[in-house]
Amino acid sequence: MTSSVDVQTTTPLDLGPARALSCRECGHRIPLAAEFACAECFGPLEVAYEFGTITRADIEAGPKSIWRYRNLLPVPADVDSYPNTDPGLTRLVKADRLAAALGVRSLWVKDDTGNPTHSFKDRVVAVALAAARQLGFTVLACPSTGNLANAVAAAAARAGWESVVLIPSSLERAKILTTAVYDGALIAVDGNYDDVNRLATELAAEHEDWAFVNVNVRPYYAEGSKTLGYEVAEQLGWRLPGQVVVPVASGSQLTKVDKAFRELGELGLVEPTPYRVFGAQATGCSPVAAAFKSGEDVIRPVKPDTIARSLAIGAPADGPYVLDSVRRTNGAVEDVTDAEVVEGIRLLARTEGIFAETAGGVTVATAKKLIETGQLDPDAETVLLITGDGLKTLDAVQDHIGPRATIPPSAAAVREVLNRG
Amino acid sequence: MTSSVDVQTTTPLDLGPARALSCRECGHRIPLAAEFACAECFGPLEVAYEFGTITRADIEAGPKSIWRYRNLLPVPADVDSYPNTDPGLTRLVKADRLAAALGVRSLWVKDDTGNPTHSFKDRVVAVALAAARQLGFTVLACPSTGNLANAVAAAAARAGWESVVLIPSSLERAKILTTAVYDGALIAVDGNYDDVNRLATELAAEHEDWAFVNVNVRPYYAEGSKTLGYEVAEQLGWRLPGQVVVPVASGSQLTKVDKAFRELGELGLVEPTPYRVFGAQATGCSPVAAAFKSGEDVIRPVKPDTIARSLAIGAPADGPYVLDSVRRTNGAVEDVTDAEVVEGIRLLARTEGIFAETAGGVTVATAKKLIETGQLDPDAETVLLITGDGLKTLDAVQDHIGPRATIPPSAAAVREVLNRG
Repeated sequence: MTSSVDVQTTTPLDLGPARALSCRECGHRIPLAAEFACAECFGPLEVAYEFGTITRADIEAGPKSIWRYRNLLPVPADVDSYPNTDPGLTRLVKADRLAAALGVRSLWVKDDTGNPTHSFKDRVVAVALAAARQLGFTVLACPSTGNLANAVAAAAARAGWESVVLIPSSLERAKILTTAVYDGALIAVDGNYDDVNRLATELAAEHEDWAFVNVNVRPYYAEGSKTLGYEVAEQLGWRLPGQVVVPVASGSQLTKVDKAFRELGELGLVEPTPYRVFGAQATGCSPVAAAFKSGEDVIRPVKPDTIARSLAIGAPADGPYVLDSVRRTNGAVEDVTDAEVVEGIRLLARTEGIFAETAGGVTVATAKKLIETGQLDPDAETVLLITGDGLKTLDAVQDHIGPRATIPPSAAAVREVLNRG
Repeated sequence: MTSSVDVQTTTPLDLGPARALSCRECGHRIPLAAEFACAECFGPLEVAYEFGTITRADIEAGPKSIWRYRNLLPVPADVDSYPNTDPGLTRLVKADRLAAALGVRSLWVKDDTGNPTHSFKDRVVAVALAAARQLGFTVLACPSTGNLANAVAAAAARAGWESVVLIPSSLERAKILTTAVYDGALIAVDGNYDDVNRLATELAAEHEDWAFVNVNVRPYYAEGSKTLGYEVAEQLGWRLPGQVVVPVASGSQLTKVDKAFRELGELGLVEPTPYRVFGAQATGCSPVAAAFKSGEDVIRPVKPDTIARSLAIGAPADGPYVLDSVRRTNGAVEDVTDAEVVEGIRLLARTEGIFAETAGGVTVATAKKLIETGQLDPDAETVLLITGDGLKTLDAVQDHIGPRATIPPSAAAVREVLNRG
């Protein structure tokens, strides 16, 4: 959002159109720095911008990555000249077969499995790395249970930075391997994700050269999710969809897609047409859906128990802001069972050839439930955000799918299987 | 290659600039059809074209997928209006850190892990599907050991076609799951890949509505690999690299990249500067490297024994044409051990943040060996083709990588691991 700014930075810091950090709660502003909580009220800090004139043509002439939106992000204008993973500009797929299955008229799937490490985390990490470089950090770090670990380790390797990635020691072997291969400092911690997260916050305070992307540079990192919204609008031909369904973990992504849509309208890059934002959670970790349904403003933390591990944040920091977004736009937050998540994964795969991780199953299944319960308008154009890849969560589907048959090598046996012989 | 054509098709078949099938051995031409072997000499059939005027601007204004090259492929002009996976236009990454590690001056990595099912097979399958639709097929099929199975099942799902995918029953569970999820007819066959392949050929002869992409529509399918060459040239700013290293399985991909480079020169889309083509094999399945090194023209089949399963074709159909390409361009074919393959995967991951499957490890390790043995010029601009994703071949690296340590949740323990406390 364009904002007037009363704090001028005096450092040589170049974070493009970013001008200050502003508290979401009390509005207190501070100069751009590696801060994430308001000193006045402990509210979360957010990047405040002063955008110049930005045209569609400028963006369209830019790099084929999120850096085409660099003038809308807290990064320097020459950001793409530094080695990075160049994420983004993933496919927006017209999903007619899924639309028919769900009974909606016009449906699109934003397929973020095409990113370098196959999740949307490459977007936020790329922005965090660019900002961290400007802020003087030299080590890229995170606590993570999977997708973020992959993205941080890969981005650091590509940039020639050291990385420190903290994971719970109980993490699945596949997620460990896909992080370890990049050869940063991957450290397994005996404890659950909350323990790992606390440790990260402690280390961030001790090591002033370590940028924990989702802790001490979180305000910058979070802005990377806006690119999902920008891309959807550009790929629709510079217009906003009527409805968008977004998975909710911390809730940050949903609020940033909302922010992106508003910014595009305010900047005159799209018509500011009305849109509705919907949040998707797994029932086994649905504190935001619970608050939405009961009409409350406070999120009651839960202990996660779901196969959708990448969404399993029991105390989502941006939960209240998710409620703001969905209520303001006349959307909703809904949740689905693990069985529905698996069916969501399978439905998307068999109709559109896209294999999503469990979070994608949550999104598809939630869209289905929202339609069945009359909350989502089947006649309005709808976009589903698919944010991660099924190859990373094979465990979730392994008991449900397999070959149709195992046969001897004969054509007659094949015909028999297909009921054609 | 532009060719004059003496056979006119009389059917309504629209395969764009394709005009005939031509035998690579005897030059015999037949009308466009679902044929793959020459009736005169049993040589392989290849698509012959009559290209119109094609400009860089036309291509650059096209879709952000392989379909920007539709006027160079055996597909109709409106190919992208049919539901398909829209593969291609993957990243060409300037690999300065890998270049430094290998001791070369200018190095690029073509990262085809960004395709919809994370391998180059999405390219060939998309072209096969488009041609199969024109040729009147209604079922998409293949024998496969992995990447092709994923790509066929996903493409068929997206298009709303039935699919029949035949795999050896011994295939790894991960590769089975990533195919089964698309819900086509996945059939496990008790036997090795050769048995599966023979069964596919038998079934193709029996079912005139089944397009086995790599059997009865192979001439069209194989053309899809040209798009790798087109993209490299376009992404370099419309010029050819001095050297390219390509993994060799059947050998088709290498010959098609060579063909793409020649076509671009002949059509005036790039300066026809000299380039050298290098082939990469795993020592455990290196019949083409063996023939190259011994100066022979005949490929002696081998029984594959390597972790690079996606390259494990013991009797590569296009092996002789690989020899033609590398000899004509002053290139070479080299091979590397499985230990070198693993080190190649790790080297690419830690320098560039790209996690390749074993075939990518073969390419990187072969490039290293070609440099060390003076076969590849370290001063010439070089492109490495990375054709598949490490997430699909985790088994190959699992005994070699892991967390640096497992610790209790304390900052002191982290410091100790990093030798900083």
